[in-house]
Amino acid sequence: MDELEIDAVAEVELDDPVLVEGLPGVGHVGSLAVEHLLEELEGESTLVRRIYSHEFPPKVSIEDGVADLTCAEIHAVSVPDGRDLLVLTGDHQAQTNEGHYVLASAFLDVAEEFGASELYALGGVPTGELIDEYAVVGAVSDESLVETLEDAGVEFREDEPAGGIVGVSGLLLGLGERRGFEAACLMGETSGYLVDPKSARAVLEVLEALLGFELDYESLDERADEMEDVIGKIQEMEQQQQQQMDVPTDDDLRYIG
Amino acid sequence: MDELEIDAVAEVELDDPVLVEGLPGVGHVGSLAVEHLLEELEGESTLVRRIYSHEFPPKVSIEDGVADLTCAEIHAVSVPDGRDLLVLTGDHQAQTNEGHYVLASAFLDVAEEFGASELYALGGVPTGELIDEYAVVGAVSDESLVETLEDAGVEFREDEPAGGIVGVSGLLLGLGERRGFEAACLMGETSGYLVDPKSARAVLEVLEALLGFELDYESLDERADEMEDVIGKIQEMEQQQQQQMDVPTDDDLRYIG
Amino acid sequence: MDELEIDAVAEVELDDPVLVEGLPGVGHVGSLAVEHLLEELEGESTLVRRIYSHEFPPKVSIEDGVADLTCAEIHAVSVPDGRDLLVLTGDHQAQTNEGHYVLASAFLDVAEEFGASELYALGGVPTGELIDEYAVVGAVSDESLVETLEDAGVEFREDEPAGGIVGVSGLLLGLGERRGFEAACLMGETSGYLVDPKSARAVLEVLEALLGFELDYESLDERADEMEDVIGKIQEMEQQQQQQMDVPTDDDLRYIG
Amino acid sequence: MDELEIDAVAEVELDDPVLVEGLPGVGHVGSLAVEHLLEELEGESTLVRRIYSHEFPPKVSIEDGVADLTCAEIHAVSVPDGRDLLVLTGDHQAQTNEGHYVLASAFLDVAEEFGASELYALGGVPTGELIDEYAVVGAVSDESLVETLEDAGVEFREDEPAGGIVGVSGLLLGLGERRGFEAACLMGETSGYLVDPKSARAVLEVLEALLGFELDYESLDERADEMEDVIGKIQEMEQQQQQQMDVPTDDDLRYIG
Repeated sequence: MDELEIDAVAEVELDDPVLVEGLPGVGHVGSLAVEHLLEELEGESTLVRRIYSHEFPPKVSIEDGVADLTCAEIHAVSVPDGRDLLVLTGDHQAQTNEGHYVLASAFLDVAEEFGASELYALGGVPTGELIDEYAVVGAVSDESLVETLEDAGVEFREDEPAGGIVGVSGLLLGLGERRGFEAACLMGETSGYLVDPKSARAVLEVLEALLGFELDYESLDERADEMEDVIGKIQEMEQQQQQQMDVPTDDDLRYIG
Repeated sequence: MDELEIDAVAEVELDDPVLVEGLPGVGHVGSLAVEHLLEELEGESTLVRRIYSHEFPPKVSIEDGVADLTCAEIHAVSVPDGRDLLVLTGDHQAQTNEGHYVLASAFLDVAEEFGASELYALGGVPTGELIDEYAVVGAVSDESLVETLEDAGVEFREDEPAGGIVGVSGLLLGLGERRGFEAACLMGETSGYLVDPKSARAVLEVLEALLGFELDYESLDERADEMEDVIGKIQEMEQQQQQQMDVPTDDDLRYIG
Repeated sequence: MDELEIDAVAEVELDDPVLVEGLPGVGHVGSLAVEHLLEELEGESTLVRRIYSHEFPPKVSIEDGVADLTCAEIHAVSVPDGRDLLVLTGDHQAQTNEGHYVLASAFLDVAEEFGASELYALGGVPTGELIDEYAVVGAVSDESLVETLEDAGVEFREDEPAGGIVGVSGLLLGLGERRGFEAACLMGETSGYLVDPKSARAVLEVLEALLGFELDYESLDERADEMEDVIGKIQEMEQQQQQQMDVPTDDDLRYIG
Repeated sequence: MDELEIDAVAEVELDDPVLVEGLPGVGHVGSLAVEHLLEELEGESTLVRRIYSHEFPPKVSIEDGVADLTCAEIHAVSVPDGRDLLVLTGDHQAQTNEGHYVLASAFLDVAEEFGASELYALGGVPTGELIDEYAVVGAVSDESLVETLEDAGVEFREDEPAGGIVGVSGLLLGLGERRGFEAACLMGETSGYLVDPKSARAVLEVLEALLGFELDYESLDERADEMEDVIGKIQEMEQQQQQQMDVPTDDDLRYIG
């Protein structure tokens, strides 16, 4: 296998599509959002590309005994009355610094091949505490994009995220800008401790406003309710512990998915 | 030396051979199985290829003062009344993620060169506890292979192994499938704590049923008896400790070979 | 993106310029010095090159919501009555051993393109204790450079720094020498625990003497005063602790910027 | 700079020379031996090649303020009444697995260029305890070399060193053999805790017998005496500690050079 192989699974004509990326990251916000998007728009979506690379872990996943080599997948989605989408998903990011550059470049190659010149990288921004109101924080490749995103409810904050954006989402902005893409990162606030379907919904609602598709959130809300139950039980256990041992509470939840 | 060098040690005509891989891994199940196979079929086997690579550790092993550069070896085995075999062994897997891709591709190149289009990757699947009945768990490159393997006693389990298959065995399935191989991974259950000749025998018995060779297991059973003695002594020591100190037993054996 | 891309942002004619490097390192001495230099000579400086590379972290920094892909920047500075400068800055060094070689070579390529054959690599040398008198220690690519630097106040010490010079500064000397550059490293003494504007000033004053520019130090001194305040508070806290607990003081300050 | 650059510092005609390698390793035995060899035969030796590489640490060493880029050096030594030598030294081995392959191949290239077809890799083999009688253990690329070495006092032991030989010495044997070199590794026994000039002398005495040069050992013996003093002081301190605290002694010396 070459360092990078892009399998053309199907060809689809798209009209000025938008790349939407949701690979694993903080709170699994980006991947939850994109998986939900693909589930809800299943009837309109077609798997068009698989991207294999030495930069992914050397691994197959197993489902019912059948092996699948680690890859990233791009689906074409023809949204009725909305913008066409290219949706990027997968189980892994690259395993090295250089790998992030190689893969982000490959994703942009595919996007360009389908005529895309805009992209949204979806993810989470960790707040370190449980959240009631899920804000969506934005970062853009060019200042001219700020106003439209603010109108759709995205918040822009001075010097936030403080540490910048690392990995595929960051590079889609950075490398995308260099290749002429209008690129934005939409980051749902999330505790950082838990898989966060509510944060994913917040991000998708922004995207609905921007791109003109409409989703049903029943299944995502069910996952959110399940997570609420988990959180509730943890908080109960902690209160019991505290009563017994007079210990500080609530911030030290472990990452649970 | 180039990044990869394949030495042609001998040329042998094979009839539709099957690649059988047994490099080091969990419980040394794969390498024990393949070493036993080569010992028992020594009269019918010929070393045909040595594969050297920068991806192996920079090391020579020493036997009676003579150095051998780390490599993988492929033996051709002409089994009377059975399928011809290409048997892949070695002391090491690749040392990097990318190295696994490079070496697995090289192994498939050799297999293709000898006309193989089927392969079995042998290994162990860790259960975390000592085992009485040694099941062999399967994973395949294509659903169509399941039935034949189930008939030979292989078990297929939903979403198992949960973490997928990592390293050369996983990539032989994943990359093999992409190159048109019918590929299966046969994983003997094993505690994960000990070198496990019994698990290796379980895997080989499945392979006998599938490929038509017949092995004597005396030497492998002797190694299994030696391991039983080791386990017995450990359990005895632990019971004594427990009597003295009232400590939990038996799961925390260290890896012993 | 290729492994290395050099964007020509502007073209400027320079007369026998000197490359001055200040990437992040011990006490941020080099980067503080170079940032102050560019601030003070802003009217005479032009950004001429941006250097992007797989060897940098896969990251964008965010300022007011707008993303900037990690890169190194080279400014051309036309100093009235002084030597022309090429000033190299950036937020990161390379992330791997090999990356340091790749990037240092690229920086020398740009310097040669602009006709430079001299360079100063600025940095800090850690002393492990707070400093009153800020000496500047030198290292050079060729013995013939020692005298001029000593005349400008630089100290040369037998076998110091003992561990050699690692990273971009070291390679600019080592690779620079191989390409015919007259190269020197100017290292301000610094505790190693704190961002150190005073050490940066000491280095810049040597450079003023050598290259004929003149800087105002008001803003750098303000930063130094702020650091003094921080140090003062730490020492106060430690004295209080010591009075309460009879603990040793002062050397175990943590790195604060 | 390219990944690998070999500077031809001087050209010397040699008659069937032998490559002798002594890069840093266990007990610094190999590098001590080779440094002493070059010191004693200084009048007959010429620096012929410097080898620079991305595989070395990105570092300059500093001596009297002048920087030297990390490299390996090969000296040609014309020994009166003995075999001509190519002596390989340096301050560092490669920093990655792959780097060991790249550099060992480069060293063999230079050896071939000068007409060498034999090589000795010098090093130490750790015993874990202080040593009275310094045996020299051998490993060879081909069984036919054993007898000559045994006649010179080298010991060959079944399956020793148990873990094989890792790094440049191992690869000079392994890659050397593949390129037709007669290659041997001479490993002086050494505690593994201390820089060991006595072990280096034991190795050099074997080499004298094999290659016909003669060395004075005064300076090496002085270094050995200094180490004896260090060991003596450590043992004294430990006995005092033991008297005070009834603690076990003597095996847990730290690595001191």
